[in-house]
Amino acid sequence: MLPTRRIFLVLLVSCGICAGASAQQSISDPLPSWNDGQVKRSITDFVSRVTTQGSPDFVAPELRIATFDNDGTLWCEQPVYFQFAFAMDRLKELAPKHPAWKKQQPFKAVLENDPKALADAGKKGLLQIIEVTHSGMTVEEFTKTVLDWTATARHPRFKRPYTQLIYQPMLELLTYLRANGFQTFIVSGGGIEFMRPWTEKIYGIPPQQVVGSSGVTKFEIKPDGSASLIKVPKIEFIDDGPGKPVGINRFIGRYPIFAFGNSDGDLQMLQWTAAHPGLRFMGIVHHTDAEREYAYDRNSHIGKLDKAWDEGVKRGWTIVDMKRDWNRIFP
Amino acid sequence: MLPTRRIFLVLLVSCGICAGASAQQSISDPLPSWNDGQVKRSITDFVSRVTTQGSPDFVAPELRIATFDNDGTLWCEQPVYFQFAFAMDRLKELAPKHPAWKKQQPFKAVLENDPKALADAGKKGLLQIIEVTHSGMTVEEFTKTVLDWTATARHPRFKRPYTQLIYQPMLELLTYLRANGFQTFIVSGGGIEFMRPWTEKIYGIPPQQVVGSSGVTKFEIKPDGSASLIKVPKIEFIDDGPGKPVGINRFIGRYPIFAFGNSDGDLQMLQWTAAHPGLRFMGIVHHTDAEREYAYDRNSHIGKLDKAWDEGVKRGWTIVDMKRDWNRIFP
Repeated sequence: MLPTRRIFLVLLVSCGICAGASAQQSISDPLPSWNDGQVKRSITDFVSRVTTQGSPDFVAPELRIATFDNDGTLWCEQPVYFQFAFAMDRLKELAPKHPAWKKQQPFKAVLENDPKALADAGKKGLLQIIEVTHSGMTVEEFTKTVLDWTATARHPRFKRPYTQLIYQPMLELLTYLRANGFQTFIVSGGGIEFMRPWTEKIYGIPPQQVVGSSGVTKFEIKPDGSASLIKVPKIEFIDDGPGKPVGINRFIGRYPIFAFGNSDGDLQMLQWTAAHPGLRFMGIVHHTDAEREYAYDRNSHIGKLDKAWDEGVKRGWTIVDMKRDWNRIFP
Repeated sequence: MLPTRRIFLVLLVSCGICAGASAQQSISDPLPSWNDGQVKRSITDFVSRVTTQGSPDFVAPELRIATFDNDGTLWCEQPVYFQFAFAMDRLKELAPKHPAWKKQQPFKAVLENDPKALADAGKKGLLQIIEVTHSGMTVEEFTKTVLDWTATARHPRFKRPYTQLIYQPMLELLTYLRANGFQTFIVSGGGIEFMRPWTEKIYGIPPQQVVGSSGVTKFEIKPDGSASLIKVPKIEFIDDGPGKPVGINRFIGRYPIFAFGNSDGDLQMLQWTAAHPGLRFMGIVHHTDAEREYAYDRNSHIGKLDKAWDEGVKRGWTIVDMKRDWNRIFP
């Protein structure tokens, strides 16, 4: 029975080593969904340099501000921005109360599922759809509408709730940065009140660390004396492109030292991050994985990555190749 | 020698008791500048109820949002809003480059120290003065201008830097709330970029927890390729009156459970705080101490406390009588 015992012992020891190695890895690797390579190293090197006391690049914790785009950076944005999917669902829900929409563009295009007419309506049409579907109620009622939708709506390709189509590597990155004393902010072209109801639950980012586009709200005292804020059908601020540094300055009042985006709408946020002295991290997610997610860049209608790509290459920013750098996409 | 010894012992023991009592007091009293009474008790009772686990009024730490007005609530606002003193000093500094101002109201009134003409110029004139003195430079240059002014300017009556004319009882209250897991925010009609350069140092409130009025900023890429934000002479948002709930909703995205103001400009913030279910604290500072600070309310041009007073009395909000409730005003 000695050989058997020996085998058993060998097995025991190897298992011990395996378990030890795996525990070791999970302790030493806060980013297990990122493949080893230059991209991953650029992140961990940066964090190590700004958090090492005595390092020439050390940054005090209160100045460790990290800003992330949302659509296409923290969650999927194809085949349409998820907020637009919400707006279209909502428009259809509201349509019975608005018979005129059947004959009126851009609403008609949504009701008839006519992508061409919708594309023809352009940015102006999109804003009209956002305005009518994101107003006429209190902020609390709107929050409820968003939560109801995220609980029930499903992505057409992945058949999952939209809030599950978040990127696992980015979740790890957010956690890793916070563990290193960073404050993580969303700076998105998406609606601030569309994101806030769920960002804390899915990203660990509380409402006050969400910067986004917004509509006008109006304070009212109701006949019973109670106070409410009504959402008015008027866009107030678009937190996209050059609006992103404006939003960062207005909402945060500090400079990001770490910023991540994925499209030309993030270019100015990345430039603004790069503009201030000291070690800075500028990152771009390049969608290269049509099999596990989507592949798009310069010619995409959604999430176009053209000028920001050129600038990123020229300046040596970190560019994530989704297919190469991420061993897992969704949680 | 026995009597002497006995006296000595008695003294020793009493001193011991005194020292013990005083240590006890400083441990148990986080608000030493607040006199005992109903007002102080209303604060400590509230904090105790919302922070006691198992209490029906318990509030999770992430929902412990406290909002404070600044002018007249955290620092003095007489004889003019300090930001307006800054704007007038700045206008005089800029005047040599703008010879037309000598003949043009409301600028002429400032340059000639003519309070009547200035009052006649009204709110519109005030905004014009703010616009020309708070623009035409980058956000960094503006920050420097504010810091230079706070370092050198002196209050006409107290002959101290304006940033020293903050209320010691309110500093203790901010610290006490934070020690109890609250996040403290400023929600002020004052300019967001005028306050942010010094709020962290003097109140412990970081820039991202300052909500205020703002001007338009414009993103620009300079010829050398670097990015900047330029302050444009245009008011974008006035965080006063009904603007305060709008600002709270936009910047914080959560409901305050504790709010403090001192004038009608804070009424809607207090109503908005009161509007949501659960235990809420609404406080008003009533300036009643002409000797140590100022006494003013219903008929004051600055910091008028009229409708908010009536509402506060009717609803049973906490009203601080500065003379009665504060044993110390400034640090």
